Amino acid sequence: MSKVVIVGGGFGGLNAAKALGGSRHDVWLIDKTNHHLFQPLLYQVASAALSPGDIAVPIREILSPYENITVLMGEVTAIDKQKRIVVLKNGDCIGFDYLILSVGARHSYFGKDEWEQYAPGLKTLSDALKIRERILISFEKAERCDSITEAKQYLNFVIVGGGPTGAEMAGAIAEIAYETMLKNFRRIDVTKTKIYLVEGSPHILPVYPESLSIKAEQYLDHFGVKVITGKRVTNISSQGVEVEGNLIPAHNILWAAGNQAAPLLKTLECPLDKQGRAQVESDLSIPDHPHIFVIGDAACAIDKKGKPLPALAPVAVQQGRYVAKLIRKELPKSARPPFSYLDKGTMATIGKTKAIGTFGQIKFHGFLAWLAWCFVHILYLIGFRNRIIVLGQWLFSYFTSKRGVRLVYRSVDEEFPTKR
Amino acid sequence: MSKVVIVGGGFGGLNAAKALGGSRHDVWLIDKTNHHLFQPLLYQVASAALSPGDIAVPIREILSPYENITVLMGEVTAIDKQKRIVVLKNGDCIGFDYLILSVGARHSYFGKDEWEQYAPGLKTLSDALKIRERILISFEKAERCDSITEAKQYLNFVIVGGGPTGAEMAGAIAEIAYETMLKNFRRIDVTKTKIYLVEGSPHILPVYPESLSIKAEQYLDHFGVKVITGKRVTNISSQGVEVEGNLIPAHNILWAAGNQAAPLLKTLECPLDKQGRAQVESDLSIPDHPHIFVIGDAACAIDKKGKPLPALAPVAVQQGRYVAKLIRKELPKSARPPFSYLDKGTMATIGKTKAIGTFGQIKFHGFLAWLAWCFVHILYLIGFRNRIIVLGQWLFSYFTSKRGVRLVYRSVDEEFPTKR
Repeated sequence: MSKVVIVGGGFGGLNAAKALGGSRHDVWLIDKTNHHLFQPLLYQVASAALSPGDIAVPIREILSPYENITVLMGEVTAIDKQKRIVVLKNGDCIGFDYLILSVGARHSYFGKDEWEQYAPGLKTLSDALKIRERILISFEKAERCDSITEAKQYLNFVIVGGGPTGAEMAGAIAEIAYETMLKNFRRIDVTKTKIYLVEGSPHILPVYPESLSIKAEQYLDHFGVKVITGKRVTNISSQGVEVEGNLIPAHNILWAAGNQAAPLLKTLECPLDKQGRAQVESDLSIPDHPHIFVIGDAACAIDKKGKPLPALAPVAVQQGRYVAKLIRKELPKSARPPFSYLDKGTMATIGKTKAIGTFGQIKFHGFLAWLAWCFVHILYLIGFRNRIIVLGQWLFSYFTSKRGVRLVYRSVDEEFPTKR
Repeated sequence: MSKVVIVGGGFGGLNAAKALGGSRHDVWLIDKTNHHLFQPLLYQVASAALSPGDIAVPIREILSPYENITVLMGEVTAIDKQKRIVVLKNGDCIGFDYLILSVGARHSYFGKDEWEQYAPGLKTLSDALKIRERILISFEKAERCDSITEAKQYLNFVIVGGGPTGAEMAGAIAEIAYETMLKNFRRIDVTKTKIYLVEGSPHILPVYPESLSIKAEQYLDHFGVKVITGKRVTNISSQGVEVEGNLIPAHNILWAAGNQAAPLLKTLECPLDKQGRAQVESDLSIPDHPHIFVIGDAACAIDKKGKPLPALAPVAVQQGRYVAKLIRKELPKSARPPFSYLDKGTMATIGKTKAIGTFGQIKFHGFLAWLAWCFVHILYLIGFRNRIIVLGQWLFSYFTSKRGVRLVYRSVDEEFPTKR
């Protein structure tokens, strides 16, 4: 019986744990939070469509059927490869025979950390609640202004980064401004809201085929979003966002541009790529330590063509299951088949009724793509209850254009917190 | 056309606004938050059964059909009776012809404000989320302990005050410990959880007939709650709760004992009772100012028998509608009929399947009373979507004993905040 410690209960860690459930191993899963988060729908919490509880399930609830798995809530601050222990923030040490690190990534500001206070990123439920609050309070502040000039600054939204999160948030904010809020205000005209999506590459959603990216830009344009491509953000301040020298005045800025793997990986003392991800070998273990694996967004794994695998949920899920299998069989390094990612396609949704996607060589877009997106996301959501509730909320939003969770907990007079 | 300012979007203020909707008056509703909160179900958010969004609806969404109503998010810090203005925290002044104050109450610690850091009260969504977090983190901390002696302190729960909130929370925590969490932990035995409900009166739920209070105590006892009545809490500290000198060691203490009306009423400079409520006249206006009304938990209104009306949602609802009617008709003080409360009965739920209630002279209790409680609360919940979702969550909880929203946003290593 080996002791397996898994750090992180995201897609990678959770699936590794489930695949080790019922085995003869003593499995410990440690996570900073108490819940598994269905990150692909996080932007819907940030845009007031879903409640945090709809897309998050307690990890110990999911793993309760497996008696060989112990779940601990705690933060791992260091790893000692030689002693084979992980160290928790409260000083506790937990030994391991095998270690699976699935610690994910946070947003990175390319060295401009001072931008964070003005442009929060979206990775956790707390991030999402903060962003939701900023969006909603902005409209409230605008309603309190005495002139439209004064109100304007609160009605400008800038999203930096045209990846899936950026595109999804832009579409969602457009829906809030131009549909949900339409009859809710008396003093401001919410249709004066301006939403900018800024992307440095020639097109948004650059991982998709160009024709689909162009389609997505057209959809966003149709929903009222101003898409700015091929231009770089040069500064972010309390005044707004500077795009190659031109200031867009805004209080609502969302960062969806860069990722950086969790800092814990530095304590591993193994080769990291420039995003801070561990450069793993073909079996996802780190060099010279065949019993330590890194998976998901924290790993830089190379596919057969020599390219790094994308930071997507299905990659993490498959990696978690793969590593669990190696451990169940206790295969020595030499006997391990290399990990190989089976790409089942990817999708991104744009606004309320459109999506784009690829499935092998097939490209699709439009309303049917959006229905497929809904179906796939409901299907992969964990827990019967969450599926029903999310489906119910979506049907409600689809037919009413209302958003179910427009809550603000802070006072409108408080300044936005400057640090997370 | 008169200008009517309503402060507070709770049961009283919201119903006053709705009853003034479509009138020729210019109505302004000002609230600190952006949502109307269905407070009778707040304990279900604190006990992880419902999401905040399930019991809260944006005020401006509810009032959007009425074009004569403007909703402002802001905090009123003072009232000038002579100039007929309310002053907002940001310095804005809003004039009024009529003023309706529906500003509610917060919990009071009978002068022992230092107890608050150890024993938070339950009035707002932020309170509920804080309490939910404390309850859930306690079990997490217990699971990290190396001995049962150490873990015990985290498995003791003390609720101070045996009114409806106290009784409901005690039942809910019992359900969490003895049913929901049963198979979720490996190192601690959650059935070792102890829940104490301390009430100074001879019986809990003292506003109910004694036979029903005794029934409620029996239900709680059956669910595993230790009910301590006729004894006073003499101290609360980081060690736990002292009940007439005997210490119950606990980290989880909930305050459900006293209320104090909102401090804003002091700026009214009118007679207040010892709970800080405005002593209103028979038309709910304050002495010498027939155009200023105080309703709901902020008012001490006297019924026909000379007793103050209880702090209940139906009282506030009826008062809001009554005041709106006076204003619509612009009745002079002399022509106003006195407010009279129509008591449709009250109910309190105990644990998952029991409730007690009165309806005129009729007393009822047990499972059918609980079904009636569910029915009435679904009925009065605002918004079609919320009704469906809450009903869905209840059915799910009833059949699975699971709780849908067991989320913690903080780190388990942070100390509990000492001040709200």
